[in-house]
Amino acid sequence: MSDLKTAALDYHAKPRPGKLSVELTKPTATARDLALAYSPGVAEPVREIARDPSLAYQYTGKGNLVAVISNGSAILGLGDLGPLASKPVMEGKGVLFKRFAGVDVFDIEVDAESPQAFIDTVKRISISFGGINLEDIKAPECFEIERTLIEQCDIPVFHDDQHGTAIVTAAGLLNALELVGKKIEDAKIVCLGAGAAAASCMKLLVSLGARLENMRMLDRKGVIHAGRDDLTPHKAVFAQTCTKRTLADALTGADVLLGLSGANLVSAEDLQRMAADPIVFACSNPDPEIKPELAQAARSDVIMATGRSDYPNQVNNVLGFPFIFRGALDVRAKRINEEMKIAAALALRDLAKQPVPEEVCKAYGGIKLEFGREYIIPKPLDPRLIGVVSDAVAKAAIASGVATLPYPAHYPLRSVDDLFA
Amino acid sequence: MSDLKTAALDYHAKPRPGKLSVELTKPTATARDLALAYSPGVAEPVREIARDPSLAYQYTGKGNLVAVISNGSAILGLGDLGPLASKPVMEGKGVLFKRFAGVDVFDIEVDAESPQAFIDTVKRISISFGGINLEDIKAPECFEIERTLIEQCDIPVFHDDQHGTAIVTAAGLLNALELVGKKIEDAKIVCLGAGAAAASCMKLLVSLGARLENMRMLDRKGVIHAGRDDLTPHKAVFAQTCTKRTLADALTGADVLLGLSGANLVSAEDLQRMAADPIVFACSNPDPEIKPELAQAARSDVIMATGRSDYPNQVNNVLGFPFIFRGALDVRAKRINEEMKIAAALALRDLAKQPVPEEVCKAYGGIKLEFGREYIIPKPLDPRLIGVVSDAVAKAAIASGVATLPYPAHYPLRSVDDLFA
Repeated sequence: MSDLKTAALDYHAKPRPGKLSVELTKPTATARDLALAYSPGVAEPVREIARDPSLAYQYTGKGNLVAVISNGSAILGLGDLGPLASKPVMEGKGVLFKRFAGVDVFDIEVDAESPQAFIDTVKRISISFGGINLEDIKAPECFEIERTLIEQCDIPVFHDDQHGTAIVTAAGLLNALELVGKKIEDAKIVCLGAGAAAASCMKLLVSLGARLENMRMLDRKGVIHAGRDDLTPHKAVFAQTCTKRTLADALTGADVLLGLSGANLVSAEDLQRMAADPIVFACSNPDPEIKPELAQAARSDVIMATGRSDYPNQVNNVLGFPFIFRGALDVRAKRINEEMKIAAALALRDLAKQPVPEEVCKAYGGIKLEFGREYIIPKPLDPRLIGVVSDAVAKAAIASGVATLPYPAHYPLRSVDDLFA
Repeated sequence: MSDLKTAALDYHAKPRPGKLSVELTKPTATARDLALAYSPGVAEPVREIARDPSLAYQYTGKGNLVAVISNGSAILGLGDLGPLASKPVMEGKGVLFKRFAGVDVFDIEVDAESPQAFIDTVKRISISFGGINLEDIKAPECFEIERTLIEQCDIPVFHDDQHGTAIVTAAGLLNALELVGKKIEDAKIVCLGAGAAAASCMKLLVSLGARLENMRMLDRKGVIHAGRDDLTPHKAVFAQTCTKRTLADALTGADVLLGLSGANLVSAEDLQRMAADPIVFACSNPDPEIKPELAQAARSDVIMATGRSDYPNQVNNVLGFPFIFRGALDVRAKRINEEMKIAAALALRDLAKQPVPEEVCKAYGGIKLEFGREYIIPKPLDPRLIGVVSDAVAKAAIASGVATLPYPAHYPLRSVDDLFA
């Protein structure tokens, strides 16, 4: 067994199975305590909530509780391994939600026979929670599942594989473009991959100013163009009338390559076709579309990002979802809308340009972190993230009219500890 | 507002809403920790579980995780107030599971349009958990719901309102009968109430030796007898050919009255019809079928139990469910069968006859607790419960062939702390 494998299995198994536990937040030492926590005292909040359902946020954990829900049909890059096998990932998501934003998570693995059965199930349990994070659900079913649940639930529903990736990618890409002096409106963007994350990334980039006619998306069959008759609706959105057919065609003169597909699909020659100062996000995990060493050998002027923590510029969803939900929950947003996603992306973009505290550099082995080609996105262990990103999301929710509470008194947060101080 | 109401609402609201939080059990300080908890390390347990589903018990929290699930159709004695209003009770159940037996609980409130929709929903999410505690679901739907889920799930499914009540009641009743020198085989038992708990109590008493022909059950229309044509199947089981029609008829010469119905339905005159040394369990909450003061005034020879903590002999489900699930989870029982329920009842019966530790007496205001008419069942804060009851349930699971693991090395438990020591 590899070192990582041994360490990861030990981490999950010892000294007790899993990574989460449910703990008590109120006293339970005496018979009186128990009479408040359960019968007869518990009848009082029950009656209050029956009278006014919004009081569930006052008397239960609903308002700080997110369900991380999967059917296991697209686990990480491993494919459809079923709901039970997805449990370590969903629990891991719970770890990150708690660690970075103080959000309580119940992970729910759903064994549903159809997308409709999955939707019905999530809908029926949704009142238990303050928000729903859908995870590792394959395309194209994930689009319909998310769309229907957003319509039917009155709490935020967010498919992180789509939007989390899009938000963090957009933040890094905006900074990379700034560093090479290019405008997003003019940037020629190639997206290798046409799954859920790819579609969401391209949509968010359009919201941020990118022009559809400058974008080319590729699936397994090559460039998605208007002449193809095999396109699902979510791909057809990106179909352009053009003569480009292969990756090499598409990359010729391109400013940006966004890889959301698979290992080693991009060659040094491909990169050499790109415009000056090419920006390459090779996000396939664990093995990127092109190795950073190879990319840099081919193009010394490249700005490179990956999904990996052992290279600079890691595109990591953890920079997004904990704080996006934190902000949404804190103003009790009815949904997570485009305005909130953009606010998160811009907050991440801006934070990368701020001087990095010494403690963050230390957490990453003492390297000097400074805005530039090797540091275009903040690092996950940066303690400023919760304040900056959650705050931006909450403000955007208020400004766009989906918040039902005012700006929280404890904002901006300096740490998770502020939440219940 | 009453003092209890104010205190209960404050308890639930301050300093943070609710009573539970989800916490991390593994280190998450460094980038390396996070690489084990989430991507890329988390792929290892995913692959292992995909290969062998039983490894979910080794690498995730499944094996110590119980879902407490309700549709809110029969919340405490308050009736059908809907799923959201049941959340404080379900969270409270989670508090008791954790406090007394170290079991992690996710409370899930289900808004289902039909019993079948409820069943489908619970079935589909059941793989997430090591066991399912159904709660506050009204009769008669609860019978079909529990039966179907037991059939369809390979983890324990247990409707506590039925069986928890039955187990604790049986324990107390066996001791009361012993104290008055009567045998359960001969005892004339009247059950006022014909809901889910009543049916389960009567069935368990039959398993323990009571004879169906000695038992009379009453619903709102009076004695359930063979001449009635309005009986649901779960009531028909208890229909006898007899001439008794009213509560007064039924109580004449009866040894035991089990009240599982509503406040103040039993009078002093009713009690005066009973045999010598009558045993009265008036379990309606918060107001019993007859007040203990009134009962004792009517019959100085009565042995009295209630559902209340402010009188002796409290019939409290918390004596059962935490330890029943603890024992079932620890030997990974496929279900909670009759043998395990009986084992729990007998363990509680026997524990009440043991000398009570000083600390327990102190926890209840310094009263002397000693086996007798005012102490026929253990007290919830007795720390010996986890060892005695969980141990008995685990052994019964092994002996009856539903356990899939051997007797746990850490048994008998002295406290929750032993579990992961």
